[in-house]
Amino acid sequence: MITIYGDVNSGNCYKVKLTAELLGIPYKWIHVDILNRETQSQAFLAKNPNGKIPCLVLTSGDCLAESNAIINYLAKDSSLYPNDPLTQAYIQQWQFFEQYSHEPYIAVARFIKKYLGLPKDKEQDFASKQEGGHKALTVIEKTLAKQVYLVNDQLSTADISLFAYTHVADEGGFDLDKYPNIKQWIKRIERQSNYIAIG
Amino acid sequence: MITIYGDVNSGNCYKVKLTAELLGIPYKWIHVDILNRETQSQAFLAKNPNGKIPCLVLTSGDCLAESNAIINYLAKDSSLYPNDPLTQAYIQQWQFFEQYSHEPYIAVARFIKKYLGLPKDKEQDFASKQEGGHKALTVIEKTLAKQVYLVNDQLSTADISLFAYTHVADEGGFDLDKYPNIKQWIKRIERQSNYIAIG
Ligand SMILES: N[C@@H](CCC(=O)N[C@@H](CS)C(=O)NCC(=O)O)C(=O)O
Ligand SMILES: N[C@@H](CCC(=O)N[C@@H](CS)C(=O)NCC(=O)O)C(=O)O
Repeated sequence: MITIYGDVNSGNCYKVKLTAELLGIPYKWIHVDILNRETQSQAFLAKNPNGKIPCLVLTSGDCLAESNAIINYLAKDSSLYPNDPLTQAYIQQWQFFEQYSHEPYIAVARFIKKYLGLPKDKEQDFASKQEGGHKALTVIEKTLAKQVYLVNDQLSTADISLFAYTHVADEGGFDLDKYPNIKQWIKRIERQSNYIAIG
Repeated sequence: MITIYGDVNSGNCYKVKLTAELLGIPYKWIHVDILNRETQSQAFLAKNPNGKIPCLVLTSGDCLAESNAIINYLAKDSSLYPNDPLTQAYIQQWQFFEQYSHEPYIAVARFIKKYLGLPKDKEQDFASKQEGGHKALTVIEKTLAKQVYLVNDQLSTADISLFAYTHVADEGGFDLDKYPNIKQWIKRIERQSNYIAIG
């Protein structure tokens, strides 16, 4: 059986959990405490030298890091990651967008607000994340005005990657009422069979 | 023929140019002036709603954004992106690492120093990029102490993605003399046939 190292409250880790659940892949979950710096222990760094969760350990013992790489691998041979180069390219396009133009704003704002309790010395940092977050949400909103899922009108790992932090963006101070198509898309994903909530 | 929108001095765009050259794929290059905000024009946003280069336009007219998604697509059916799910997963792992833990430090420090000329009001921002950049370089250095390329001891798009900003990291204030394995790897890539320099 595969083993997933993660924290159920982290959107990046939740991507992996949700993908495994949607696909019915059995897994063992090992909790890693980020705030306690368990990602920086020697034992954990031997698995992922970059010291971050999620991290997947295969039955071979091989370790694979990076949430989006992990979920594309788990979804191989499934409709969530179809075996067509151009489809895979568009899925990856959205996932690189997520890591570069979405997560650093929305996930970080959520972390500062929800986990650090928005302390005074982080207020400026928090405020600086709002514009980039809304820009990313606008790109998604415009796409979902034309199609029901991000790639080819079919649920894929691209949707899972973007869903993870988008559906809890309010916890980072982003009001989703301004994004009606995103709200519909969130409901569509939540209605999938085997769907499991974050946390 | 495919068309690439980019700026030859941007590492993200150079990844696409280098991949096309290594693979002998003919392309038309259209220069986009970032500092002149050409990425924010209506015409460009119609291609990439996220307003960033590089952007690939296929013969079908379809547009594909995100440097790493583009190069994996160009390299399909080649040894740079072998058709094996676990190999592709490790290539993607390095590429997501690049976008999340490497580029935001090394490319941004280079931009501030080389293109903005390290103005007084950016000094703190510049300094804040050094620790993360060295952390990323250390992860690469340790990997290259054990193998000649990042994935399976064979040149892949993972190497191209990491090479783009690593080989010019000195322009962002990172002294590569501390990373002898990275320096060997850079030479190894520069010796590839059809290699083309940045810029
Ligand atoms: N690009 C990575 C980001 C992973 C990440 O940032 N993980 C956080 C938790 S959400 C973490 O492990 N932080 C602890 C640390 O950096 O020490 C991915 O998508 O998996
Ligand atoms: N994640 C993107 C990053 C692309 C990116 O940041 N492009 C910069 C140039 S290197 C750009 O277009 N900046 C202009 C802008 O944001 O308006 C990729 O890998 O392609």
